[in-house]
Amino acid sequence: MKLHRIVAASVLLGSLSTAALAHDEHQYEAAQARNIIYVIGDGMGFEYISAYRYAFDDPSKPGLSATAFDDLLKGSATTYPDDDTWVTDSAAGATALATGVKSYNGAIGVDANKHPQQTLMELAREQGWSTAAVSTSQVTHATPASFFTHHPSRKMYDAIADSLATPIADGQWSFDVLLGGGYDNFNRDDKNWLPELKRQGMTVVTEFDQLDDVQQTPVLGVFAPYGLPHAIDDDAARLSYMTKHALRLLTERRKPFALMIEGSQIDWCGHANDIACAVNEMHSLNLTLKVIKQYLKAHPDTLLVVTADHSTGGLTLGRDGIYQWHAERVRNINASIAEMSRTLVDMPAAEWREYLKVNLALKLSDEQWQQLLQPAQQEDKKARQQAIRQALVAVTAKVTGTGWTTSGHTAVDVPVLAAGPGAEHFSGYMDNTDIAKALFKVIGGQNP
Amino acid sequence: MKLHRIVAASVLLGSLSTAALAHDEHQYEAAQARNIIYVIGDGMGFEYISAYRYAFDDPSKPGLSATAFDDLLKGSATTYPDDDTWVTDSAAGATALATGVKSYNGAIGVDANKHPQQTLMELAREQGWSTAAVSTSQVTHATPASFFTHHPSRKMYDAIADSLATPIADGQWSFDVLLGGGYDNFNRDDKNWLPELKRQGMTVVTEFDQLDDVQQTPVLGVFAPYGLPHAIDDDAARLSYMTKHALRLLTERRKPFALMIEGSQIDWCGHANDIACAVNEMHSLNLTLKVIKQYLKAHPDTLLVVTADHSTGGLTLGRDGIYQWHAERVRNINASIAEMSRTLVDMPAAEWREYLKVNLALKLSDEQWQQLLQPAQQEDKKARQQAIRQALVAVTAKVTGTGWTTSGHTAVDVPVLAAGPGAEHFSGYMDNTDIAKALFKVIGGQNP
Repeated sequence: MKLHRIVAASVLLGSLSTAALAHDEHQYEAAQARNIIYVIGDGMGFEYISAYRYAFDDPSKPGLSATAFDDLLKGSATTYPDDDTWVTDSAAGATALATGVKSYNGAIGVDANKHPQQTLMELAREQGWSTAAVSTSQVTHATPASFFTHHPSRKMYDAIADSLATPIADGQWSFDVLLGGGYDNFNRDDKNWLPELKRQGMTVVTEFDQLDDVQQTPVLGVFAPYGLPHAIDDDAARLSYMTKHALRLLTERRKPFALMIEGSQIDWCGHANDIACAVNEMHSLNLTLKVIKQYLKAHPDTLLVVTADHSTGGLTLGRDGIYQWHAERVRNINASIAEMSRTLVDMPAAEWREYLKVNLALKLSDEQWQQLLQPAQQEDKKARQQAIRQALVAVTAKVTGTGWTTSGHTAVDVPVLAAGPGAEHFSGYMDNTDIAKALFKVIGGQNP
Repeated sequence: MKLHRIVAASVLLGSLSTAALAHDEHQYEAAQARNIIYVIGDGMGFEYISAYRYAFDDPSKPGLSATAFDDLLKGSATTYPDDDTWVTDSAAGATALATGVKSYNGAIGVDANKHPQQTLMELAREQGWSTAAVSTSQVTHATPASFFTHHPSRKMYDAIADSLATPIADGQWSFDVLLGGGYDNFNRDDKNWLPELKRQGMTVVTEFDQLDDVQQTPVLGVFAPYGLPHAIDDDAARLSYMTKHALRLLTERRKPFALMIEGSQIDWCGHANDIACAVNEMHSLNLTLKVIKQYLKAHPDTLLVVTADHSTGGLTLGRDGIYQWHAERVRNINASIAEMSRTLVDMPAAEWREYLKVNLALKLSDEQWQQLLQPAQQEDKKARQQAIRQALVAVTAKVTGTGWTTSGHTAVDVPVLAAGPGAEHFSGYMDNTDIAKALFKVIGGQNP
């Protein structure tokens, strides 16, 4: 099956719901969403949208280039967990977004007392909907895990894989489509789920190009041992590609569906204080939103909600009292700091400068070159790699004018974006649990 | 005249516009705003709303306390100036918000070629509206200045005062009400405008309690030599108090009006990297929004738009990899870092600790006490004061978990909030110039 099938299927199903095509808000409100696409940009604070906007602006065109985020913006959300820290982790954040219940940092679909809470995906199944998730992290990671499983700790990756792999009925699992990384969580020394799942009737794929031939759900696609490579080091289209296939397969099932899509690695680049990495993950999500918007045009009975679980890194565009953020310098960087560190650590010191000229691609002072080349003198490999990483973070942040305050998360409100029937219920200021509660109502057939 | 007059006047004028009371959006759109209240939180990025929300939450009540910002939030705006820096200053920001034209950093109501651009206040006067501004900065500062005057540089405070003081016709000035600081810009060695303005028929007041007796416009109120004291050091109600009087005087004029209100010092606290100072300025603006909301209830033909010119300081809530922001510690601080530095610099070192226990009110380690008391050893007064300030910034940020990346501004998008007829035109993602352009249409009698 080729990608053009998506278009064909879209046209076919689009005709089912022409009533909801009307642009009048009241008609929108009356029309109940048949499908939900719930996009979570992990770590995607407002500052990541700003950074992406400026870094990917096309300076050859007059005015600022529009992004796929622009016409979707509706408001903002608080993200605090169920304690007095105000700063959530991705597990408590995802649990709030998946169940409508605040919990402790680390919680996967359980409340503060570690009691399992019903997730949006579980209600959707009860209602006869198809369920699906796509992520650039392993599918066992906090965000997708919180939509399908219940565990006291996000670190229980293998147990989460076991939960995902265990049928809920004969030939039925908690999901119909599950795509991302995490091969090694399913194929372990103590247990290899993959052949077993195939025997039980699941389609299992481990290479992206196999997706084109998948005709039958349920399908599990695990395309990397753990997380997929960063967009900047690989292909920014990997998330939109998986999304296209998820939408194709869900549409072919001809049932309402709930699809969660996570841009997982915005957060990872934020933790690494790697701005070029982050804006490329944002580009990956932007491409995905374009695919989703096309789907919404053909299927106006689909509600899209986009938000973040928290912001990461304390990113800001501006530092040290200087009124300038060097968007074009960020855009020119060709590899993640993680990738550059991994490469440099095993490379003869004499070759570092040439490598960095191509990959970091920043004009540097002699002092900054000195700072970058210094770690070559570290004999211990682990210490050398860490020193390389630290130098790359410091120099890149300085030269691009990018500020970071933490390797962790922050308590700042995050954006809420929406389109489709009922989008107006995701406007203004909300709490992250309010978003889930409104979506529970949509799935339950009520007006949110 | 006492404050209860405001309520009486509100009730009287409220009856003029019952048609616009209906909540139906289409009727709202049809009803043209008769008045505009344009609130600018200088430096108020989303992170300042988050910080205020958590610092001023009442922990004795279940759930998070609502703020006056919450039900107004509509979207966000880009703030970049007319060059490739992406980071604006307050002058270019205010010029964009006042004229709809992007300009260079430093510009006061002029474009990149230093040509004067029509401001919202100038169009409002052309249309027979009353015009007014209230700020906690001097009224000659970048934001109010950009709404009434045209100058190539924001630093020309005296020339800006001269522009404001020069009548545009006999007994008429560019404003009907202008309240804030800036006494010393009008009362200078080379020129004392205040007696001259009185002779020409303007009401001039220099003490807050004189405002109660003001019956006649135009009125100039300058209540401090330059900026007013910080809210945390003085009275958070100073901005809402001036706003109440501005609304009373404008309502008594019985003409449509355009009123710009600036929470000027959110930015100043941000520049100082002083989180307690910042959240108290946010509280000051919150009190002001409450006054405005009451006015909107009685005058539903009034459009409120709230935004920021940029964010300041690279503020984030979270630092150093720790997942906690200490809201209650921020709330307990009783003085600005500027005020504490000014006091400590002349205080015997033996008394510092007692003073800081009361005013900084943070539980500190011995090492942190050491860090704070160390500057007492600086003999030079100026160097001592700077060392005190730096130590206070470093310790406060560390102990409260607050991150800062700059003493300047950042390029991150800022919130847009609105209520009243036409509020829906200030939704989603906008550019700062779009906000002004939409308001030009409202004043011009068009649908934005």
